[in-house]
Amino acid sequence: MTLTSISSWQSFGGDLTVHEHTSDLLGCDMQFAVFTPPQAFYGPVPVLWYLSGLTCTWANVMEKSGLQRAAAAHGMMIIAPDTSPRGADVPDDEAYDLGHGAGFYLTATQAPWSTHYRMDQYVTQELPPLISEHFEADMSRQGVFGHSMGGHGALTLHFNHPERYKSVSAFSPITSPSQVPWGRKAFEAYLGPMSVAWERYDATERVKERQTEAHILIDTGDADQFLDEQLRPQIFIEACRKHGQKLTYRMQPGYDHSYYFVSSFIDEHIAHHAEALKD
Amino acid sequence: MTLTSISSWQSFGGDLTVHEHTSDLLGCDMQFAVFTPPQAFYGPVPVLWYLSGLTCTWANVMEKSGLQRAAAAHGMMIIAPDTSPRGADVPDDEAYDLGHGAGFYLTATQAPWSTHYRMDQYVTQELPPLISEHFEADMSRQGVFGHSMGGHGALTLHFNHPERYKSVSAFSPITSPSQVPWGRKAFEAYLGPMSVAWERYDATERVKERQTEAHILIDTGDADQFLDEQLRPQIFIEACRKHGQKLTYRMQPGYDHSYYFVSSFIDEHIAHHAEALKD
Repeated sequence: MTLTSISSWQSFGGDLTVHEHTSDLLGCDMQFAVFTPPQAFYGPVPVLWYLSGLTCTWANVMEKSGLQRAAAAHGMMIIAPDTSPRGADVPDDEAYDLGHGAGFYLTATQAPWSTHYRMDQYVTQELPPLISEHFEADMSRQGVFGHSMGGHGALTLHFNHPERYKSVSAFSPITSPSQVPWGRKAFEAYLGPMSVAWERYDATERVKERQTEAHILIDTGDADQFLDEQLRPQIFIEACRKHGQKLTYRMQPGYDHSYYFVSSFIDEHIAHHAEALKD
Repeated sequence: MTLTSISSWQSFGGDLTVHEHTSDLLGCDMQFAVFTPPQAFYGPVPVLWYLSGLTCTWANVMEKSGLQRAAAAHGMMIIAPDTSPRGADVPDDEAYDLGHGAGFYLTATQAPWSTHYRMDQYVTQELPPLISEHFEADMSRQGVFGHSMGGHGALTLHFNHPERYKSVSAFSPITSPSQVPWGRKAFEAYLGPMSVAWERYDATERVKERQTEAHILIDTGDADQFLDEQLRPQIFIEACRKHGQKLTYRMQPGYDHSYYFVSSFIDEHIAHHAEALKD
């Protein structure tokens, strides 16, 4: 599969590289970034997928989270996909929370979205062979984390593929999309009126069906402007408690929804994954 | 003096705040950012001024360098001023390296720039009383650092006020502005044809005149796209060697001019200042 190199920077002794490829699955050209830690010089390293939030691309986390420092220290490769299919031919919406930049890591079944919006398949089926072919990635040791909409993505990808994504964490995630405005709007557009089809993409519904071996780590700021309306952590916390899913959900006093919050705790998240994925 | 709060975020247990004020000296409204570390809760902390490069504002370093982590660990306050006067009434140029975003930390004497461009006076005379009045800053312990044009600013501010800025470091600085295109263009516009007036703002000329007690730390990437034409480190290294100025100038293999480079070494710079400014 052809991968075009777009940009390359040295960072913390490793390499941050940005790549473009034609996605057959999404029907458009896509970009993603990879941070390769210096340890990859000696052989394959664990892979940590970072899923971004609404409106983001690979750039937000790579420019603003400072995660390269801990990734280099722990020898973790970081993959940052885009948040939706993109391009003039890809259906879009004027709102920031639907269409471009708002793929919600699901496979849309409703027109006009069903032609291109398959971000869960893109991340789980199309990207892994590309990563495996072009990078020193140990595909037997993968974790997933993300922010906001990407935290939702990380949790649902983990619950739907626990054998693959052995570790999982999130910053300010949407954990009950079927019960909050962001999720309802997106799911109705992409999946149609509420039905069992929504459950696959709702972490709270997933944890009721199947618990995993992972110890989930979540951080959310108690000054997050989306806390009460969109995040509503108590629903997921209660579901994990009731169904025996290991979860550490930390409310961080004074922090908001921004990357200033993410960067403050990303070292601990990477250490969490490194511990879970160690040989 | 009136200070208007623009934004506020919690970051690494400290506070990142952005402020606006009317600068009498510059004749326009100005914004700057302050990172206050958690240690300031208990009393005044050392102050480290970060001067940014061409086209930048306070945002580049605060969003992309990750410096809050080390600043919080060492208990250092960080002040990030803007890089020029701004506004519709402030003379500008279409080029990125003159006018808005390109103040070069000097006092312009030539029309049309002389009406507003006084960034050295702004940083050294107008901002300090504001900082002292509104923040838990120990003004007896100040250091200065910066990137590119801001590295030039840091070095010249240090040489012109060594008793005030006791520690100094720089990333990819312009160290011999009188001998490189960026500096010559700016100095000719702001200061007129080459004359003794340039020497005050040329670190290489300064170190010939007076050496300081500081141990200067500089990091530059050997893959920096501006290395050979604009940075030309050898001129300054040779001047420091010849005149007995303590300097550690590190060429970092593989790094470029970006904030991916700055972030990779900013922990070491903040530690350098913390050591020099400790009680």
